[in-house]
Amino acid sequence: MIIKNNKDNMAKNVIVAQSGGPSPVINSSLRGIIETCRMFPDRFDRIYGGWHGIEGVLREELLDLSVQKEEEIALLRNTPAAGSIGTCRYKLKDKQVNDFNRLMDVFKVHDIGYLFYIGGNDSQHTALKVSEMAATQGLDLIAVGVPKTIDNDVGDNEFRLIDHTPGYGSVARYWSHIIQNANEENMGSSPSDPVLVIQAMGRKIGYIPAASRLADPQREMPLQIYMAESDVPLDLLADNVNDQLKRDGRCIVVISEGFDAGGIGEVKDAFGHTSFGSSRNSVFQVVVNYLNKKGLKARGAARGQVMGTDQRHTTAYASVTDLDEAYKVGQKAVEIALNDGNGWMATILREQGIQRQV
Amino acid sequence: MIIKNNKDNMAKNVIVAQSGGPSPVINSSLRGIIETCRMFPDRFDRIYGGWHGIEGVLREELLDLSVQKEEEIALLRNTPAAGSIGTCRYKLKDKQVNDFNRLMDVFKVHDIGYLFYIGGNDSQHTALKVSEMAATQGLDLIAVGVPKTIDNDVGDNEFRLIDHTPGYGSVARYWSHIIQNANEENMGSSPSDPVLVIQAMGRKIGYIPAASRLADPQREMPLQIYMAESDVPLDLLADNVNDQLKRDGRCIVVISEGFDAGGIGEVKDAFGHTSFGSSRNSVFQVVVNYLNKKGLKARGAARGQVMGTDQRHTTAYASVTDLDEAYKVGQKAVEIALNDGNGWMATILREQGIQRQV
Repeated sequence: MIIKNNKDNMAKNVIVAQSGGPSPVINSSLRGIIETCRMFPDRFDRIYGGWHGIEGVLREELLDLSVQKEEEIALLRNTPAAGSIGTCRYKLKDKQVNDFNRLMDVFKVHDIGYLFYIGGNDSQHTALKVSEMAATQGLDLIAVGVPKTIDNDVGDNEFRLIDHTPGYGSVARYWSHIIQNANEENMGSSPSDPVLVIQAMGRKIGYIPAASRLADPQREMPLQIYMAESDVPLDLLADNVNDQLKRDGRCIVVISEGFDAGGIGEVKDAFGHTSFGSSRNSVFQVVVNYLNKKGLKARGAARGQVMGTDQRHTTAYASVTDLDEAYKVGQKAVEIALNDGNGWMATILREQGIQRQV
Repeated sequence: MIIKNNKDNMAKNVIVAQSGGPSPVINSSLRGIIETCRMFPDRFDRIYGGWHGIEGVLREELLDLSVQKEEEIALLRNTPAAGSIGTCRYKLKDKQVNDFNRLMDVFKVHDIGYLFYIGGNDSQHTALKVSEMAATQGLDLIAVGVPKTIDNDVGDNEFRLIDHTPGYGSVARYWSHIIQNANEENMGSSPSDPVLVIQAMGRKIGYIPAASRLADPQREMPLQIYMAESDVPLDLLADNVNDQLKRDGRCIVVISEGFDAGGIGEVKDAFGHTSFGSSRNSVFQVVVNYLNKKGLKARGAARGQVMGTDQRHTTAYASVTDLDEAYKVGQKAVEIALNDGNGWMATILREQGIQRQV
């Protein structure tokens, strides 16, 4: 068609989408992708956001981000969570051909040449499967993954694939502030509230609760951290708390939502992961009840709280380094699409001898 | 004694103490008291902080704040909660003479002429009782109350005694930010997490959950607020949520800890108030479970969280107006002690036609 021929043959349209839990810096990656694509109009034509991730692509709910002004895109830096283009927890099943066929149709109809998918392990898997499917069908689609997770669990155990994941730094910074404030609270209120139990995210991996230590690197606070990996029965936990009470008269307990405190009526999401926020009980509540029933070696009662999604969607504590790195992985993903092609993920590797501020 | 005679006869020592739950601006009042006292060395000699409120006075645990440098006192502005001089929930019983006699002894031994007591209704009651007791015993003690509460429940229903209480403004600002961020989360994550239930403080009075409306004055968000005063049974609440889901596909529920959702194993503090943070279950959990059991008119599950003490001890959201007003009631309390004498509370009254920014 004549209209087609009027435009540079190289230029194709772009879909950017994200899935999984949001982070305070996810929109910084989105901004990096959009602004970098706009620098190469001969390669990238229209930029669409898949509303609520791959689900929006399946439903052909594509937000035309090309029409947004430069200033509007820049505001993404300080926009938390995923309200801008949405996210999802939709699992593309390996043998579910309907979804894949539908995706290929949407890509063809909208002349999509590039897919940038922001997310964690499941999202990277989705991006990989889509890119493989496209290649099998001979579709000229370049899919690139953009890492994001608050759990810091993308990659391998030796940090060779990725050193740390955008999103984690801000959540770590959140916890360093939350615990410093909570320490002022606990120090002041200990005559009636000697034990403060605070539940952190991290279904299986302890990076988030462990970040509480950033509030107290010299270990001067009466702070105890229990991760999902901590193999501590409740009676030992209570003994630890009471030992702390005997020493300091107060204790702050940071506990992972995934800490094994017995059955709490878990609810599973579409990926089969436990959604602790929807469970019938919470670990912090089990621990508070156990401590108060067993008895504290101090006057007053244990109290608890669960910060919930606040830790993954609050701008106030976003780390500037994390915001910058999130932007750069978005930028890098576009560079990969231009120079390296299909099937990669942008990454962050640590150079020896370089220290970064969180 | 010669040492006594060397000092101005007018100058007496000061005790400042606080009780009840902390606020993000309580230390701003403390700073106002200290800095103003320091302006009148001929009237105020040493300034002591009662460590953990009236309990510290009873135990003679007096922190000598006079030795602190000016810069150190200035830092109190951005120090949240009550870690600086502590707080308590200790009830001085009307007929309990031992405590009162002990207090009088401490005042005499340490040549205390002034008591500034920062706190809510119970604390004001304590200050009043101490001042009455001192007067009865012919002790030359001037006790002045300094209002503080996050609940905004000091004074009368017509706001003639006090318009609003320092502490509340910052907690209101906290909720306006928390809900704006939560709205980005809920908008983005609604395909799997369509309902987000967030529990706010406010045992009996709805000012705190009501402040969530500051996040959405135009009522554009799918936001529902349930206060302790809201007489809504759970099935109606669930119907409201499902109606919202049918309209918007998502819903944010802010619910007071004091909302009547049936028995939750309440734990009482020394004043007989329910300490919801220590209870065996939480309102948000009851609501989440009820919604998920009854079934949502949307895919996914309800999830919940309880911000707990974070809302009363976080500096990040402290209101500048609130910090300034907290300082000024401290300043005013000293002025009252100088000019008006015993048995008053500093207050904030609203002038007609004056609007203030929170």
